[in-house]
Amino acid sequence: MQRIAIDMDEVIADAYHRFFEWYERDFNCRLDPDLCRGKYLRDVVPADQRTHVMKYAHTDGFFKDLLVMPDSQEVILALSKKYEIFIASAAMEFKTSLVHKLEWMNEHFPFIPWNNIVFCGSKSIINADYLIDDHIRNFKGFEGQGILFTSPHNVHEPWSPRVNNWREVAALLL
Amino acid sequence: MQRIAIDMDEVIADAYHRFFEWYERDFNCRLDPDLCRGKYLRDVVPADQRTHVMKYAHTDGFFKDLLVMPDSQEVILALSKKYEIFIASAAMEFKTSLVHKLEWMNEHFPFIPWNNIVFCGSKSIINADYLIDDHIRNFKGFEGQGILFTSPHNVHEPWSPRVNNWREVAALLL
Repeated sequence: MQRIAIDMDEVIADAYHRFFEWYERDFNCRLDPDLCRGKYLRDVVPADQRTHVMKYAHTDGFFKDLLVMPDSQEVILALSKKYEIFIASAAMEFKTSLVHKLEWMNEHFPFIPWNNIVFCGSKSIINADYLIDDHIRNFKGFEGQGILFTSPHNVHEPWSPRVNNWREVAALLL
Repeated sequence: MQRIAIDMDEVIADAYHRFFEWYERDFNCRLDPDLCRGKYLRDVVPADQRTHVMKYAHTDGFFKDLLVMPDSQEVILALSKKYEIFIASAAMEFKTSLVHKLEWMNEHFPFIPWNNIVFCGSKSIINADYLIDDHIRNFKGFEGQGILFTSPHNVHEPWSPRVNNWREVAALLL
């Protein structure tokens, strides 16, 4: 059985939405999603706000109760009949996220057992046939096939195969 | 560069010592280490204490400030000059352990960057040439060479190569 490793943030969990929410709370201003295309969020905000927003992902609660990416639950459930599914999140950078990420998985993807959840740093350690991720840097050293999941920050990056949503993942892999 | 993945509990961190400590605290009685040879700790204690001791590893604090296994720091530092080192702990089973394990790594193995720490369930997901672990079950599906690190519970299990301490790891891999 082939194995698919799947990233969390921006692939199954909507961390952008949380960033926008907190930014609006702190600066009373709504970021324009169109301005985020091809950029990291920290580079979209005014320079004097950068230090503040770069703390978000390190702040307790940022990864709690994130929205689930559309169609990800149904498609991953269908994939799990045909492939071995692992969730692989580079969570080690964000110490406060670990428990929230685990709770989130239990809540929204209860059909994925804890044995199949991995928190790591470098994804070169992942032994899988496919890795669905929004960061090309995570494909470096990964020995399987990287599948780029479109996110505003990566729209201009050249990579194939690329999928724009979970329906396209289903079309590619089911 | 070849890659070595190294388990935490009973390989670099002394979780047995913590178990003995808590057992003595709770039952005012010291377990005989000789009785633990070839058995899991839960099977060493009287049957009516089993449910209680099986909660230890799930209790907040169990994995905090564990003793470091003798010589592991020096040997792993030397190995890190010749190999890529990853620490791979099946920590997902113990939700309260995640942050303590990460803090413990930062304190005792500061030369191992967070990118090289992995919390997982099944170790079949680990892509490495060697895995040093005290559980033969963790070698199942692991595609590299499993190296069994002796622990009281595994003394009767047949496996080769086996190492009895970190000096023997150095002799085998350096």
